[in-house]
Amino acid sequence: MTDLFAKHRQTLDKALDACEKRYSWTAYPESPSSKIHGQEKPAAGKARFEALLGTDYPLAQPGEVGRTGGEISPYTGEPLAISYPRMDVPRLYEAIVRAMPDWRAAIAETRIGVCLEILDRCAGQLFENAHATMHTSGQSYIMAFAGSGANALDRGLEALAYAHKAMADIPATATWERQFGKGGAARLQKQYHLVPRGIGVVICCATFPLWNGYPALCASLATGNPVVFKPHPSAILPVAMVVSVCKEVLAEAGFDPNLVSMVADTRGDPATMALLEHPATAIVDFTGSPGFGEWIEQNCSDKLVYTETAGCNSVVIESADDLQAMVSAIAHSLCQASAQMCTSVQNIHIPARGILVGGQRVSFDEVAAALAAAVEKHLENPQVLCGTLVDSTILQTIDRYRTLAAERGRLLRDSAPLHYPDFPGARTASPLMLEVTSDARDIYRDEIFGPVSFVIKGDGIDECLLDATTNARERGAITSHVYSVNEDFLSRAVSAYHDAGASVACNLVGMPINFAAAYSDFHVTGLNRAGNACLTDLAFVANRFRIVQSKRMV
Amino acid sequence: MTDLFAKHRQTLDKALDACEKRYSWTAYPESPSSKIHGQEKPAAGKARFEALLGTDYPLAQPGEVGRTGGEISPYTGEPLAISYPRMDVPRLYEAIVRAMPDWRAAIAETRIGVCLEILDRCAGQLFENAHATMHTSGQSYIMAFAGSGANALDRGLEALAYAHKAMADIPATATWERQFGKGGAARLQKQYHLVPRGIGVVICCATFPLWNGYPALCASLATGNPVVFKPHPSAILPVAMVVSVCKEVLAEAGFDPNLVSMVADTRGDPATMALLEHPATAIVDFTGSPGFGEWIEQNCSDKLVYTETAGCNSVVIESADDLQAMVSAIAHSLCQASAQMCTSVQNIHIPARGILVGGQRVSFDEVAAALAAAVEKHLENPQVLCGTLVDSTILQTIDRYRTLAAERGRLLRDSAPLHYPDFPGARTASPLMLEVTSDARDIYRDEIFGPVSFVIKGDGIDECLLDATTNARERGAITSHVYSVNEDFLSRAVSAYHDAGASVACNLVGMPINFAAAYSDFHVTGLNRAGNACLTDLAFVANRFRIVQSKRMV
Repeated sequence: MTDLFAKHRQTLDKALDACEKRYSWTAYPESPSSKIHGQEKPAAGKARFEALLGTDYPLAQPGEVGRTGGEISPYTGEPLAISYPRMDVPRLYEAIVRAMPDWRAAIAETRIGVCLEILDRCAGQLFENAHATMHTSGQSYIMAFAGSGANALDRGLEALAYAHKAMADIPATATWERQFGKGGAARLQKQYHLVPRGIGVVICCATFPLWNGYPALCASLATGNPVVFKPHPSAILPVAMVVSVCKEVLAEAGFDPNLVSMVADTRGDPATMALLEHPATAIVDFTGSPGFGEWIEQNCSDKLVYTETAGCNSVVIESADDLQAMVSAIAHSLCQASAQMCTSVQNIHIPARGILVGGQRVSFDEVAAALAAAVEKHLENPQVLCGTLVDSTILQTIDRYRTLAAERGRLLRDSAPLHYPDFPGARTASPLMLEVTSDARDIYRDEIFGPVSFVIKGDGIDECLLDATTNARERGAITSHVYSVNEDFLSRAVSAYHDAGASVACNLVGMPINFAAAYSDFHVTGLNRAGNACLTDLAFVANRFRIVQSKRMV
Repeated sequence: MTDLFAKHRQTLDKALDACEKRYSWTAYPESPSSKIHGQEKPAAGKARFEALLGTDYPLAQPGEVGRTGGEISPYTGEPLAISYPRMDVPRLYEAIVRAMPDWRAAIAETRIGVCLEILDRCAGQLFENAHATMHTSGQSYIMAFAGSGANALDRGLEALAYAHKAMADIPATATWERQFGKGGAARLQKQYHLVPRGIGVVICCATFPLWNGYPALCASLATGNPVVFKPHPSAILPVAMVVSVCKEVLAEAGFDPNLVSMVADTRGDPATMALLEHPATAIVDFTGSPGFGEWIEQNCSDKLVYTETAGCNSVVIESADDLQAMVSAIAHSLCQASAQMCTSVQNIHIPARGILVGGQRVSFDEVAAALAAAVEKHLENPQVLCGTLVDSTILQTIDRYRTLAAERGRLLRDSAPLHYPDFPGARTASPLMLEVTSDARDIYRDEIFGPVSFVIKGDGIDECLLDATTNARERGAITSHVYSVNEDFLSRAVSAYHDAGASVACNLVGMPINFAAAYSDFHVTGLNRAGNACLTDLAFVANRFRIVQSKRMV
């Protein structure tokens, strides 16, 4: 057997160093450009994806009792017509439980080596996975390759580095010797063994199926826990491809491929509860709606639960150096992936009397208009930036808020279909922007999934900050932004967001402000309703295993 | 302000090294001998304890609404007649919440410095605390000084070392720079702040009030969380003394003394639920009965819960080199602190056909008789070893099992009062030993608190091991022992205990086998019903704080 740990040791060491110093680094190129990869790889990836359409996805798992799956491409409106095993969960679990002792008995470095190899092979699979993500999650090809691909793989490696760190903290053996009274010296040889918790269920979301999927996989598997993926019914294929890689690597390394499995389902015949209720499920990693996430947090007290859900992410604009750079950065967030990212901005707070830009007052209406115009600018070539809508209910959401705009404020920018020449049937919508005051607080305090945002006229900047931070505290926030050239205000704003249990970014321009950097950003604080875990810190990994010891007198 | 971190830096560094290599080390001498401490200190400690009898214990806390407390010395049967503040929990919490921002804002090293100073002063208070522990928990003076004193302080320092390690893992700042497309380089300055969870409630047990008290205090306080001690109604004074030290050190360091507080109560007017139900309680450290511990684990899903309860600790005897050394070691556990320790042995499994000792067969009856005789030998001078019974219900427990002995097996050794010349009224009982078969499984599978043990005749050694490990898995175990000269069996036994989520000690003789070594033993696995936490590993500390970050474009 190849020593996979030794093979990838340098990558792991670099990840550990990046986590410690938190600089920018990536182990996986995020551009799908043929300038980097050549012509052949991208084409081969696309061909492999297309060859899967209309087939029974090959996944040998004990307990298959039929087939399931009903994915539809948001780009074509056509079913992918791929079927996946429909699983008898208790039978699958029996097989997984049989596989556990060998995996548990493997030393940490062996397990980490397997995980490193899995990530490496998944990196080699990013082209086909990007097409799969595009035609299920609805992301653009480039976003699918980067955000749900390379960037997500980096996060998997980050989680693996933390798992390594937590496990390496415990020595394998120790010698312990001391005097007890006049009875002479007692000398003990001690051995410390790491014991996994049990089966880890990874519940993936529809829009970025692997964003938290890789980190949860690595955190659980490296610490000895088998993993069962439960993909969202509308985005199974990207997860299935990763599960295939896991099984392949596990088998090659001499382990049971059932250690990573998948339970797919459809909306009409869901399988999640069977996984959550099974007594062998010891860990749940959940990415999805705040409602279900909270239910799991409250009702699975016998399991370790790690959630990332969503919040109403805010921007507070106090002042700026460069209005165009600022509104372009914010508008980018409103457009990117049709605002279906956990880091997408929803609420933009601006004081009623406007803001200072380079010392000159710019009215509220001018800033609002500049934001809307910046959105138009980003929409000149929308396919790469906006992608499609993962779900048709988002169109209903847009309709609802369009109606509410007239009732509760005004429509600052209407949403309309976007036209992609290659995909005339794509399900799309440009950003809907509402202008409201705090009277509409009841509607903008909900996390709205999709391209709906609010430009909120606050009485003054203090009211803006209070509103935004109160919402972060009470309704959750994953990203928060402040724009100001005023040091006092920036300092006050940072404190206010921190007091609300939220992280904050100041004056980000010239880059996609939705971007969360693996190895550097602690993604999700765990202090508000947007999730109870941080990906990744020591707490995300340290409790996934326990320690048993034996000591022996010598 | 003295730099407390610098003052105690060497102690912390040594603790970190001991945790990493897990050798034997202590920062606090465990012997109260006047040969070490001189004549004056022990006498002064005793005098300070005696001066508190019959007084209102001075503890200035906002929200005092009367006095409470009803401790009775198990040595004299006399009330201590010390009163403690009876607290209005919401009012106390208001004051604590006001104290939090300054403590939260302090850097980790400041908080760790304060904790190190607290431990140091508590070490200077061990004499009076030993008398307090003796006359509340009922421990012998020497045990109170060592087990609930110096050894427990070491465990506090161990938890502090882990808290330091977990917090030091996060840098204060980072610079992050990368290229986004053709948009030029984005350069961000990042700051990472550690944020505590909220108020940590530490629920202490009656017999070893500070055993987990110091570790929980250090783990929560160092990571920024205020601590509210909830002592057991029968052992308030030892905890109150520690709380006084904490308040003193906090105030001297410029912090609000309410950051460590105490809510005392009586059995008739309990205060625990008011603490558990308060929304500002974010962490619960519980030491006590398995029943209440499990209730907290299941019903406080919105809080971090760390429990150490109890199990039915076992010994499996397969063979021995030296019968006398072995039975003496086991009998020591049956006697020490009247088997009221979390590490006390309860179930001794011996095969029906006896065991080999130095290659010669020794019958079951002979081993059982040797165990009973070894208990007699330890009882020749029982006061130091056995102490007293913390609670009169233990006498009823003994009566109940004496009756059951006749019905379900036979009485191997009857319990009787122990006579301590200095304390003629002491509440005492020597070990009650029952000989049973697995037919009595229903009675020996309960954790029985106090000096009741079972010598269990198993069909064969495999049945003995299966019974013991099944009980560990299903009913919990904190310590487990195996005696064997057979390498194959030892290896099998270690695996079987590990599979049951239990640690195991092999062939311990010539030392108190109940001893758990700070910095070396991972105390409690968290994998069975004897508790969900390990004191101390990274998981015990890493989730007590979260990380918020601010990033700023430069």
